Amino acid sequence: MITKQYRLTLPAYPRGMHLITRSIEELFDGSVSTGIAHLFLQHTSASLCISENADPSVRSDTETFLNDLIPESYTKFQHTYEGSDDMPAHLKNMLVGTSLTIPVTQGRLALGTWQGVYLFEHRYHASKRTVVITLQGEPS
Amino acid sequence: MITKQYRLTLPAYPRGMHLITRSIEELFDGSVSTGIAHLFLQHTSASLCISENADPSVRSDTETFLNDLIPESYTKFQHTYEGSDDMPAHLKNMLVGTSLTIPVTQGRLALGTWQGVYLFEHRYHASKRTVVITLQGEPS
Amino acid sequence: MITKQYRLTLPAYPRGMHLITRSIEELFDGSVSTGIAHLFLQHTSASLCISENADPSVRSDTETFLNDLIPESYTKFQHTYEGSDDMPAHLKNMLVGTSLTIPVTQGRLALGTWQGVYLFEHRYHASKRTVVITLQGEPS
Repeated sequence: MITKQYRLTLPAYPRGMHLITRSIEELFDGSVSTGIAHLFLQHTSASLCISENADPSVRSDTETFLNDLIPESYTKFQHTYEGSDDMPAHLKNMLVGTSLTIPVTQGRLALGTWQGVYLFEHRYHASKRTVVITLQGEPS
Repeated sequence: MITKQYRLTLPAYPRGMHLITRSIEELFDGSVSTGIAHLFLQHTSASLCISENADPSVRSDTETFLNDLIPESYTKFQHTYEGSDDMPAHLKNMLVGTSLTIPVTQGRLALGTWQGVYLFEHRYHASKRTVVITLQGEPS
Repeated sequence: MITKQYRLTLPAYPRGMHLITRSIEELFDGSVSTGIAHLFLQHTSASLCISENADPSVRSDTETFLNDLIPESYTKFQHTYEGSDDMPAHLKNMLVGTSLTIPVTQGRLALGTWQGVYLFEHRYHASKRTVVITLQGEPS
C-alpha cells in the first residue's frame, strides 16, 4: 500500500454549493488503484459534502432550507463581530461536515451515479479554500 | 498493510432505521486485524449512521424528530417532481451522512457496547442500496 | 505503510465543548509521517467535532443553538427513562458525528489555523469517554 497527499487550493467561491468532483479527480495520477480518498477542508465556515449532481434545484433548495434552519437573524448569537453570516457558517459546517472519505476503485472515485462532491461555501465574501487530499491504497 | 474492498447490496428497506452491523461483519474474512473499515453509501436519499442499538424507541424518536425538522410540507422546495419525500431525503442525507469510518480491532468492528450501524432509509418506496466497504490495515 | 492504534480515555466532562487537540497529538510518537488519523468515539450521547478554536463565544453559541434545535422539552420523545437529556444527546450525536478523520503531515494533525478538535459532551452527568485512534500512513 501507498499514501499520496496533495493540497488543492480552491478559488474564492460565492456563497452556495459548487461542484468540485472534477478538480479532485484531476489530481489523481492513477498511482492508487483500490483504496480510499480523504478530503479535508482546513476551514470552519465552509463545508465539504456529497449531494445530487443532476437537478440544480436540489442545490438551491438545500441552501434555502439551511438558511431557514440556521438564520442570521437568530438573536441569541454572541459571536457577531465577524459578520452576521459567520456564526451561521460555523454551525452549518458542524452539521454538514469538514471532511469526506470516498472509496477509490480502479483509480477513480467510486461515487454513485447521482453523487457529486461539493464545496459548500457558507460566507458571503470568502477567501480561497484549502483542501488536503490523502489517497491510500494498493498501487496500480 | 493491505486493502480489501467489497460491494454489499442491501435489500429495498421501508422508510426508517435498519440495523446492518451483522451484514457488514459477515463480509470480513479476518484478513485485516488492526485498521479501519470505511462504509460508503452510493446514494443521496438514504444515510449511513451509528445509533443506540438497544431501545427501539430511540429509532422511532429519531425518525419522528427528523421528519419534524425537515417536513415534506416545507413550502419552499422547488425540487418536487420526484415526490414530496425526495428533497427531505436529500437534506436528511446531508445532515446524517453518506459514509462511516469505524476502527477494526482483532478483525472486528471496534464499536462501543451500545453502538449499532444503521441504514437510514429516507424514501417511502426505495430500491436496493449499494454500500462500498473498504478495509485497510495490518493483516492477521 | 503502517497502522498504529491507540485508546484514549477522556475524563468525565461537563456538558459542552472541550478542546482535545493536544490530548490527541500527545499520543503520536512520530512513527507515521504522512497519512490520516481516525478518531472514533465509542458512545452515542456525545460527539467528536472540529470547530473554531479562538473565540469561546463560538462554543457557547453552538451549544445554545443546538439546545434550541433539539430541546429537552420536545413532547414527542418516547425514550425518556434515561433522563430528558438522553434522547436529545442521541440526536445531537447523529447530527454532529461520532468520528473524525484528519490528515497527518510531517507527523502532525494537518488542521487549519483556526480548527480545533472537540469532545462535545451532550449529557449533564456523563462518565468517562473512550476514543479509539487509528493512524495509518508512511513511516518516518
